[in-house]
Amino acid sequence: MTNDTVYSELLDRFVAIVGERNALREPADIAPYLVENRGLYHGTSPLVLKPATTAEVSAILKLASETGTAIVPQSGNTGLVGGQTPREGHQDIVISLQRLNRIRDVDPVANVMVVDGGCILADVHKAAAEVNRLFPLSLGSEGSCRIGGNLSTNAGGTAVLAYGNMRHLCLGLEVVLPTGEIWDGLRRLKKDNTGYDLRDLFIGAEGTLGIITGAVLKLFPQPLGHQVAFAGLKSVEDALALFEKASSLCGTALTGFELMPRIGVEFTVRHIEGVRDPLSNPYPWYALIDISTSDSAETAARMMETLLEQGFEAGLVEDAVIAASEAQRAALWHMRESMSDAQKPEGGSIKHDVSVPISSIPRFMAEAEQAVMAAMPGARICAFGHLGDGNIHYNISQPVGADKAAFIARWREMNHIVHGLVLAHGGSISAEHGIGQLKRDELATIRPSIEMELMRRIKNAFDPAGIMNPDKVLGAR
Amino acid sequence: MTNDTVYSELLDRFVAIVGERNALREPADIAPYLVENRGLYHGTSPLVLKPATTAEVSAILKLASETGTAIVPQSGNTGLVGGQTPREGHQDIVISLQRLNRIRDVDPVANVMVVDGGCILADVHKAAAEVNRLFPLSLGSEGSCRIGGNLSTNAGGTAVLAYGNMRHLCLGLEVVLPTGEIWDGLRRLKKDNTGYDLRDLFIGAEGTLGIITGAVLKLFPQPLGHQVAFAGLKSVEDALALFEKASSLCGTALTGFELMPRIGVEFTVRHIEGVRDPLSNPYPWYALIDISTSDSAETAARMMETLLEQGFEAGLVEDAVIAASEAQRAALWHMRESMSDAQKPEGGSIKHDVSVPISSIPRFMAEAEQAVMAAMPGARICAFGHLGDGNIHYNISQPVGADKAAFIARWREMNHIVHGLVLAHGGSISAEHGIGQLKRDELATIRPSIEMELMRRIKNAFDPAGIMNPDKVLGAR
Repeated sequence: MTNDTVYSELLDRFVAIVGERNALREPADIAPYLVENRGLYHGTSPLVLKPATTAEVSAILKLASETGTAIVPQSGNTGLVGGQTPREGHQDIVISLQRLNRIRDVDPVANVMVVDGGCILADVHKAAAEVNRLFPLSLGSEGSCRIGGNLSTNAGGTAVLAYGNMRHLCLGLEVVLPTGEIWDGLRRLKKDNTGYDLRDLFIGAEGTLGIITGAVLKLFPQPLGHQVAFAGLKSVEDALALFEKASSLCGTALTGFELMPRIGVEFTVRHIEGVRDPLSNPYPWYALIDISTSDSAETAARMMETLLEQGFEAGLVEDAVIAASEAQRAALWHMRESMSDAQKPEGGSIKHDVSVPISSIPRFMAEAEQAVMAAMPGARICAFGHLGDGNIHYNISQPVGADKAAFIARWREMNHIVHGLVLAHGGSISAEHGIGQLKRDELATIRPSIEMELMRRIKNAFDPAGIMNPDKVLGAR
Repeated sequence: MTNDTVYSELLDRFVAIVGERNALREPADIAPYLVENRGLYHGTSPLVLKPATTAEVSAILKLASETGTAIVPQSGNTGLVGGQTPREGHQDIVISLQRLNRIRDVDPVANVMVVDGGCILADVHKAAAEVNRLFPLSLGSEGSCRIGGNLSTNAGGTAVLAYGNMRHLCLGLEVVLPTGEIWDGLRRLKKDNTGYDLRDLFIGAEGTLGIITGAVLKLFPQPLGHQVAFAGLKSVEDALALFEKASSLCGTALTGFELMPRIGVEFTVRHIEGVRDPLSNPYPWYALIDISTSDSAETAARMMETLLEQGFEAGLVEDAVIAASEAQRAALWHMRESMSDAQKPEGGSIKHDVSVPISSIPRFMAEAEQAVMAAMPGARICAFGHLGDGNIHYNISQPVGADKAAFIARWREMNHIVHGLVLAHGGSISAEHGIGQLKRDELATIRPSIEMELMRRIKNAFDPAGIMNPDKVLGAR
């Protein structure tokens, strides 16, 4: 037999596990699985498998470990760092979770839901709402991202302030290990101190330690009161001071506090259908404030009014509007959630997903603006994000009329400038998107060697054959 | 040189790291470090070291790894499973964290505090209160337990409902690895998705993967409103229904919901100075309800009144009293927190620290009562705890007049009965106290072998010389 024949027979063995109709071999069929949204990564793969059960995933990984075949798990393919994209020039087999999409159980008394790893986030929202509960993870991509990917990237989004990241919304996991063994950690317990925290090790591991095939998610009561306001502000300092007031006043009823710059509002008004500036005059900065209360609608209304009153009195708020209906609330959030898309028609955009301790945000923003503008006069900084979490999407749109390719070619240079300041403030170069391929090499340079060494030891302990999503998060030595 | 001389010289090398005055060699001095509160474990040790800096801890562990010397880290020595006690018949060296007790930094704007691993929890509370902030971990032992131990056991306590376990109250760690290397993970970030979650691996590892010498803790606004009520109830079912109402109404303003049985109240009234029954008639069960609000004192008062009104109307609450002063609130909590101590004068007590999904609590309690009473007629079940977390301290006091030693000899038999039911409900045999020595062998029998195997691989990856708190959590193979 030739090598080609041997290889082709190996692929057949993988296909036999899921059945021919659930395997893609044609380049045209495979193509959508080889790219990600931003177009930064394009990989190669001979085969996409779509298992429908945990047992099928297990059989695939067992065969992969035995034959040393590299595997890339792919959930909703909405990741932003190339973690779900097969490597270029390799033969990684893609395992798509899209058929692993059952809601297994919903228990509104215990406030838990058990789901397959391939459930779409929006479907989880719906299933929770049907029993009058809330699953709070909220992302721009919620119509297509899937729970396994949300867990593997420890997804954040706009509700982290009150409810935490995906890590905090999960009680238990079912994971297929690289060897094909199944770890049943589907516990529904809020308190369980019995040995090492394996759950949190798989969460955020970006599919390099195993494939998450099932999860126990936490549910919450649906809030009775919901208020959204949009406030024009003079400065980032004022935004931080207003956030502190909001945080003290509302506690965990403060479910969102998003910072937006004038240019971001202009971009959305210009390019996103239906978006208009809610205030009559322009302001350098804006805050979108979201309050949800459990006891009554009146509490939310009173809190928002009190907060804005205190903000006006303290000279922190220049102008503000409170949404008067669910449609108006949705419109304000739509503006914020379109802010990334609205940058596309403006040309190239160099992105950063960073966090710093929130007391450092004003200084970081000032320093970064100075450094970026010095390096690239005319750059248009559209830095927005989750102020209350210290998480800024520090995006830089190209100067008007600049050459897009030449601008994008300066990605690493601009990263270096922004990340240098982030690190000087004790911040993170990836607040919520993860490492994937995009930040893999940089991670190794900024972390102490003992930390990289511990991560490698864990990787080797879990995946001795090195087949699980290779070269993501950790590079070859 | 004789072996004795070699060994004595080795001990001298350890002593030299901290200085003679910070080392204990005399049996009388060492004795308090060899026992734990319940008297279940008594170990042996030739030496107690009291390092005052991370560098000293590092030097000790480096020498220990090089010479294969077993080390037991000891924090406040308040653990309940023998995790902090040296092994019997071995020569484990105890490292006490008590001199590692500096508050390193307090930042009320970023809402973080950085502390040494040996800080006493009550001192952390005080330092937070001085800047008008709350550090919410609340335990009976807070006057003597220390942060390193709280983290290593992922401590729970009475405020978990609203604020989470110790795991949820920590942003970053400094850990000395068994090799003596120092991992500086003292990050102050709420969002940081950069690689595997090492932090959560050390938290709850009970000192078997390294020694936690520093931590970044989360602070919260001090609540403005605080209400505590004590309600007499007919049944555990009614307690659960009342909890659901409270949870929906108050959201995260519900900061405590503790279940207590009549016998527990009788024990505390009988044995704890100053405790009296707040209600004029006896009821089979009681709930202690704690509400804290951030916006105003009125909100807490209104919530508590609304909750009790709804409880009366629904027939869930038989009688109730709302504490009218801070002193009355403290008195109600004192009753709850004395419930463990109040069992001591009643003779032997066989303890369980279990959790089940909260929807299963009524059935679990009924089944456990039936099984325990069938096995041991006259047993006095004092099952109390954190209903809202599904966490019950299922304690069994000996029958009146029984022989204490004969009763305690049935510890494992009673464990077997109670834990069997816990596992049947998908519960945990250690909700908050951990594994230590007490539950080590049982853990290995109830967990899938792949889970124990992964834990062992992690242990070997972090502690190749096997010197860190050996035979705790994981036994010798």
